Amino acid sequence: MWGGRFAGGPSAVMQQINASIPVDKRLWREDIAGSKAHAAMLRDRAILSNEDAAAILDGLDSIAAEFERDGVPERLELEDIHMTVESRLAELVGPAAGRLHTARSRNDQVATDFKLWVRRACAEAEAAAAALQHTLVGRAGEHADAIMPGFTHLQVAQPVTLGHHLLAYVEMLGRDRSRLSDALRRMDECPLGAAALAGTGFPVDRHATASALGFAGPTANSLDSVSDRDFALDYLSAAAQCSLHLSRLAEELIVWASPPFGFVSLSDQWSTGSSIMPQKRNPDGAELVRGHSGRILGLLTGLMVTMKGLPLAYSKDMQDDKAPVFEVHDLLMLSLAAMTGMVETTRFRTDRMRAAAVNGFSTATDLADWLVREAGVPFREAHHITGRAVRAAEDRGCDLWDLPLDVLRNIDPRIDQRVYGVLTVEASVASRTSYGGTAPERVREQVARWQALLG
Amino acid sequence: MWGGRFAGGPSAVMQQINASIPVDKRLWREDIAGSKAHAAMLRDRAILSNEDAAAILDGLDSIAAEFERDGVPERLELEDIHMTVESRLAELVGPAAGRLHTARSRNDQVATDFKLWVRRACAEAEAAAAALQHTLVGRAGEHADAIMPGFTHLQVAQPVTLGHHLLAYVEMLGRDRSRLSDALRRMDECPLGAAALAGTGFPVDRHATASALGFAGPTANSLDSVSDRDFALDYLSAAAQCSLHLSRLAEELIVWASPPFGFVSLSDQWSTGSSIMPQKRNPDGAELVRGHSGRILGLLTGLMVTMKGLPLAYSKDMQDDKAPVFEVHDLLMLSLAAMTGMVETTRFRTDRMRAAAVNGFSTATDLADWLVREAGVPFREAHHITGRAVRAAEDRGCDLWDLPLDVLRNIDPRIDQRVYGVLTVEASVASRTSYGGTAPERVREQVARWQALLG
Amino acid sequence: MWGGRFAGGPSAVMQQINASIPVDKRLWREDIAGSKAHAAMLRDRAILSNEDAAAILDGLDSIAAEFERDGVPERLELEDIHMTVESRLAELVGPAAGRLHTARSRNDQVATDFKLWVRRACAEAEAAAAALQHTLVGRAGEHADAIMPGFTHLQVAQPVTLGHHLLAYVEMLGRDRSRLSDALRRMDECPLGAAALAGTGFPVDRHATASALGFAGPTANSLDSVSDRDFALDYLSAAAQCSLHLSRLAEELIVWASPPFGFVSLSDQWSTGSSIMPQKRNPDGAELVRGHSGRILGLLTGLMVTMKGLPLAYSKDMQDDKAPVFEVHDLLMLSLAAMTGMVETTRFRTDRMRAAAVNGFSTATDLADWLVREAGVPFREAHHITGRAVRAAEDRGCDLWDLPLDVLRNIDPRIDQRVYGVLTVEASVASRTSYGGTAPERVREQVARWQALLG
Amino acid sequence: MWGGRFAGGPSAVMQQINASIPVDKRLWREDIAGSKAHAAMLRDRAILSNEDAAAILDGLDSIAAEFERDGVPERLELEDIHMTVESRLAELVGPAAGRLHTARSRNDQVATDFKLWVRRACAEAEAAAAALQHTLVGRAGEHADAIMPGFTHLQVAQPVTLGHHLLAYVEMLGRDRSRLSDALRRMDECPLGAAALAGTGFPVDRHATASALGFAGPTANSLDSVSDRDFALDYLSAAAQCSLHLSRLAEELIVWASPPFGFVSLSDQWSTGSSIMPQKRNPDGAELVRGHSGRILGLLTGLMVTMKGLPLAYSKDMQDDKAPVFEVHDLLMLSLAAMTGMVETTRFRTDRMRAAAVNGFSTATDLADWLVREAGVPFREAHHITGRAVRAAEDRGCDLWDLPLDVLRNIDPRIDQRVYGVLTVEASVASRTSYGGTAPERVREQVARWQALLG
Repeated sequence: MWGGRFAGGPSAVMQQINASIPVDKRLWREDIAGSKAHAAMLRDRAILSNEDAAAILDGLDSIAAEFERDGVPERLELEDIHMTVESRLAELVGPAAGRLHTARSRNDQVATDFKLWVRRACAEAEAAAAALQHTLVGRAGEHADAIMPGFTHLQVAQPVTLGHHLLAYVEMLGRDRSRLSDALRRMDECPLGAAALAGTGFPVDRHATASALGFAGPTANSLDSVSDRDFALDYLSAAAQCSLHLSRLAEELIVWASPPFGFVSLSDQWSTGSSIMPQKRNPDGAELVRGHSGRILGLLTGLMVTMKGLPLAYSKDMQDDKAPVFEVHDLLMLSLAAMTGMVETTRFRTDRMRAAAVNGFSTATDLADWLVREAGVPFREAHHITGRAVRAAEDRGCDLWDLPLDVLRNIDPRIDQRVYGVLTVEASVASRTSYGGTAPERVREQVARWQALLG
Repeated sequence: MWGGRFAGGPSAVMQQINASIPVDKRLWREDIAGSKAHAAMLRDRAILSNEDAAAILDGLDSIAAEFERDGVPERLELEDIHMTVESRLAELVGPAAGRLHTARSRNDQVATDFKLWVRRACAEAEAAAAALQHTLVGRAGEHADAIMPGFTHLQVAQPVTLGHHLLAYVEMLGRDRSRLSDALRRMDECPLGAAALAGTGFPVDRHATASALGFAGPTANSLDSVSDRDFALDYLSAAAQCSLHLSRLAEELIVWASPPFGFVSLSDQWSTGSSIMPQKRNPDGAELVRGHSGRILGLLTGLMVTMKGLPLAYSKDMQDDKAPVFEVHDLLMLSLAAMTGMVETTRFRTDRMRAAAVNGFSTATDLADWLVREAGVPFREAHHITGRAVRAAEDRGCDLWDLPLDVLRNIDPRIDQRVYGVLTVEASVASRTSYGGTAPERVREQVARWQALLG
Repeated sequence: MWGGRFAGGPSAVMQQINASIPVDKRLWREDIAGSKAHAAMLRDRAILSNEDAAAILDGLDSIAAEFERDGVPERLELEDIHMTVESRLAELVGPAAGRLHTARSRNDQVATDFKLWVRRACAEAEAAAAALQHTLVGRAGEHADAIMPGFTHLQVAQPVTLGHHLLAYVEMLGRDRSRLSDALRRMDECPLGAAALAGTGFPVDRHATASALGFAGPTANSLDSVSDRDFALDYLSAAAQCSLHLSRLAEELIVWASPPFGFVSLSDQWSTGSSIMPQKRNPDGAELVRGHSGRILGLLTGLMVTMKGLPLAYSKDMQDDKAPVFEVHDLLMLSLAAMTGMVETTRFRTDRMRAAAVNGFSTATDLADWLVREAGVPFREAHHITGRAVRAAEDRGCDLWDLPLDVLRNIDPRIDQRVYGVLTVEASVASRTSYGGTAPERVREQVARWQALLG
Repeated sequence: MWGGRFAGGPSAVMQQINASIPVDKRLWREDIAGSKAHAAMLRDRAILSNEDAAAILDGLDSIAAEFERDGVPERLELEDIHMTVESRLAELVGPAAGRLHTARSRNDQVATDFKLWVRRACAEAEAAAAALQHTLVGRAGEHADAIMPGFTHLQVAQPVTLGHHLLAYVEMLGRDRSRLSDALRRMDECPLGAAALAGTGFPVDRHATASALGFAGPTANSLDSVSDRDFALDYLSAAAQCSLHLSRLAEELIVWASPPFGFVSLSDQWSTGSSIMPQKRNPDGAELVRGHSGRILGLLTGLMVTMKGLPLAYSKDMQDDKAPVFEVHDLLMLSLAAMTGMVETTRFRTDRMRAAAVNGFSTATDLADWLVREAGVPFREAHHITGRAVRAAEDRGCDLWDLPLDVLRNIDPRIDQRVYGVLTVEASVASRTSYGGTAPERVREQVARWQALLG
């Protein structure tokens, strides 16, 4: 395929390092779609005869049927999916196949194929993230009133509702979807027709091929078109951030499933046992989601490193773009599906959650706020007073609301009987009515907002 | 500041690892702006008296003036910029200062400060990228006709124009700006009022503070508000991709400045010499831009790793968010400024570029295309014929257009005299008129388009 | 300093991106030591007169005293620490200063300075890791018998002793120290005398300078000497692995300090409180150690990326080697010191640990092993029988040892009274006497081994 | 396999995310070897009867033969290679198979299998690096006198010899081998017998299994044994540094093969052509080696991220250890083999190299050194004088040695006729006789040293 200028063929090692067919065969649908759009355009612009075009289009359809049925053959000497298709086309339709490569190069072809693939991957990931949001919103609605400890530093901070906690992840996934949408919009330009790097002298219609392949239009600079892999990095960046969010939820499920917490019971469907310890019920699914975020992050890093410092236009280093993108997509889709399944089927042990919120002086801030509101104490002073109350309760081994009034008044005489009304966890969460706050009414509003958004 | 519950103070090492003031003092403007917005809102909602509010607002203005004049003091025992400001405020206005912390926590405060800072950083980077585009477009306009070798694999591929080559970077920077704009839009929600993690029971107006600080509105989930650092990662991701683009241009300048290429002469202003080799003129600026992309990439990686697997809500690990963001911003702004200066002042040695394009059979594709177009040869066959012509020229040590017609006709009899019209580099670039192609008329159109866009 | 060939000086941005003095001034001790060794060698080889050498050596000592007293001045126009020292030397001793640069270049000078610095950093880190080992071994000795749940997947697996658990980290740190030692050994070659890149024609004695600076010998290839930063990467790699180990211990302390676990109480010295929640006692130190591992990892990545694809010999990209190494060293030393302090002062709540081990059927494996050992049941079958026993206990809400014998015999008639002897957590840990196992006697042996090793 | 306690089986997604057999089947040889060593030890310690042991050992041999012949079956419901082997063993030898799992868990089993695999990978990589050294040393010996420009900043600095340049990579690879050796030594402890995490109560002989599997001894802490993946990170770190070195050589081959340089002609065996540009001869092999360093670096990052913050002992995240290690090993071995092939077969165009060294005032430092040596001028002043001479030559468009003596003496009267003896590139390289310098005699000494070392 390189013309008649090479005396010797490649060495075996060279063939192995050079051939990408074991990886890029996954692009076969996109390659055939791109070739069909190109052939139709060449025909419409009279660069290709109607007969040749018909033969080529029929041949490509036959190849698609073959690959669908039998898979894509991996012949290293054909290097990649483009040559694999072209070579099979030549077998099927003869020399006319050779006309398909008019006004096109593998450089714009692979950029087009890969962009088509990444576009679909983005859309799939966006849909999977929406499905997880849907599940989270559903569980949040069930548990809009369920009280759990809100943690900072994994220490009990203030009581929150489980619904509120789950909705935090819905927000994160909302940003993830937004990133994927932005990436899709930014990759909406078709490189086909950039040819090797300089454009072509054939009277092609790049707007036509772009449109046929569902792009908003053609790319504006042919050198950039074949040198650019921003679209892949945009997808990997969005995937990495999404996987970081999933890793946080996974960490929480793992900690919550640990017996000293016991906040959740994972379902049999989403747990595993041990080959040696019969009592075990392990959150392997969550651990794998957490672990996968490491791999995804590394794969993003890898492609960025590969692209660093490459001169224009196409360099072969860029062949290392596909393996990481394919792997990330598989890992992300599996992670999203697994997390959806786990959230769907997990039993939240709200009794244990509430018990943990009740211990730990989680309403200390409510005492401080009461002092500010009812007694006009500056917050910083109120915070000190409350600190002393907490110490008194610790010393007695009791909770804040178990402290007798005289003990509290000894600490600060401005405290009166009404304070007991704010010291329960129920009163605490009910009071947090600021926009975005944890009060059940606010949580229900957010559940309703998301249900409307998610349709 | 932790209330009265700690018997012993922190150890010296603990104080050192814990204090962030040496880093986060850079947020002082944002911290004061946030506090002023908060105080004004508390006053408007009658949570704070007019007198207290006036004292606080005056005090904050005084502090701003002090910091502007003398810098921010670094007292480790005050931990961070928030306590540094609050402590100074208490000195200036007395106990009223303690009321500023009503309905607010350091968790939402730092999220707000940092988001304000990152928002400005994004905007600055976007403007600096636009300035580099402006310079590139200007140089591209100067050199819309200048012929240079278009490279793939750093081998001579087809002739292109220097203007076309420079515009490829304008496209990349256009995507960088688009990413920064998307990031800005996505970070347009104000976390202030999320308080520690659960929202607040005080009747705050989060829409008011959001608006006062220039945000589109408040965040929708208080737990997410204090746990989220997506906005920092969005900026770092956009910066990393931008720096990758800069690293590619830097690589090219370095290679082009190397004597065997000699495509550019860097100006004295943007070169350095050697302490030992008096003849040297080194492209240090370009090398540092290329090197900085490594650091930026590493800093992005670092923050992603730090965020991985953190349970909700705030964890102290997140204090490690600021150092990488500040460092990336400095490196990126310096890289953009340096690249703008280098592009502005570099002398392009277009004679040497053209000479390199003429050697190397860069118009071989034009011969193949001619065979397709004029003789109806399928491209693949034309490619083989051209390969034999290249070999004939190599054997004779001449260029393609120096081959006598009979030699060419011996290779393929369908070749005739007209072929010589497509074999010059000028004819080649002029012919590439497809949309986005390298033909000077296309390049001038793109220059005009970008000049209009850049205003 | 670049000789008389540059017409214009650098632009302000160029000066700023180019100057490294704000960072590399930290190398001043190494720079002066290297210069002194070089000057003494030049004198001994009669390349430098005794008078000039004496003046230079005195001058360097004066500069050292100045810098020690007043700090290193940051004049950007002097670029770096080498020129800063040399320029001051010229002020002090006149033209003789110019002779110091004979047979030397900044390229070998900076490589030598930096290697000397990294060598010391490695040694410091190794000592700090040993100190943490020492503390861990001490605490392990205290708690060689204390029973806690051994976790896998953060689920209760089998009882272990706290001493055994702490010793696991001693092993990790032992590997970290081994990596640092290997790095030290590998960097034990002195680049001084490689000059710019090619060596020198002056009759220098590279073995003498190497020896004077404490190296085993000189490097063997001058091009490699000025192009190599492996020693920095070796240190960063070792630091990254060490920080990963610390992040694991930090994660455990954070989880253990969380109220549902309550396995540890961090001391006041190593905890922080909250500005809003007076009851909080946060494991900030552990969180920062965990967070720092993210930064360290990112800084390692960054330097690797910077070095990727650099042609020989020195390129200015390599100036970006120092910032990450300095930052990693500071983060690592602080992390090791903080972890040592935390381990030293943490109160282990062994009662709660034991209680958690008792719940959770942690001795199920002991039942299975008993069936294998006493009843000859194949392990896989014993595992199934035990699984049924666990289910029976779960159904009754009791522990394994609370199951009446007839219930157990109903599950499998081969079980008899003796089984109760293996079902307690004490019996379980005592039985694990295999080499490296958790039996207290084994733990004490390891404590003794490490005490001997640590001296 | 999890005992009788799970009501429902795993969901399809759970099975897919959980099963590692598609990846870890590559460990089958190690798994069988480990099981054989374990079975033999159990027999020798009378934990297993001779009959059962014989059946198991025979069965394992049969399985090895099956897998060698037919490959390893991928049944997701069997999860991993350990269960795949064990399940097949049960089919072959019946219930005795169940006794193999006595005193062993998958946790120590997988750690042992994987360590065995990584140990072999390290040794293979070390041998491949030695082979590349051997080839480089051979080419260096051929070209010990060939003059080329030594570059810094990709600017012509001083002449060096090609042999010297190639030997720089031999040094780098020497350090790579040293790192691999260190890694091997550090991973020389066998985890088998650590069981699930706590050791075992069976009277096993861990020293016997360690010895049978070729380890120096058993690991010293069972918790660490099943939690540790340092050995994998050690290999990945060493591989990453090695790939960085290869990326530098690859960059040089790519730049050197570019027509303006023309320093090398890659052989047909190690070049590729273009599907559209018949004149192209692309250094794809070198580009892929350079690109692979990005992937390798990313995969190292990924595993470090995955390990960050994992509590003891085994967590399922650690299942993500194998994919990156397998992929890195494949990429590294292919990179080393490809680089060896390219170096072996590349034609160095020493005429063009010498011509490039002659242009560019590469001997300016020699002029400065002459002034120091022969005229007693301080180096800094000599550097200035030489700078003026370079400018004079630039103005005249000639080389330094073409400057008439009176022009030189006008610049500085201390210059005399003898100076012309040091201004040729041959004189320059011959003079650099310092240890490790570029003088041909020094290069030949290093070639001889390495030939002796490499055997």
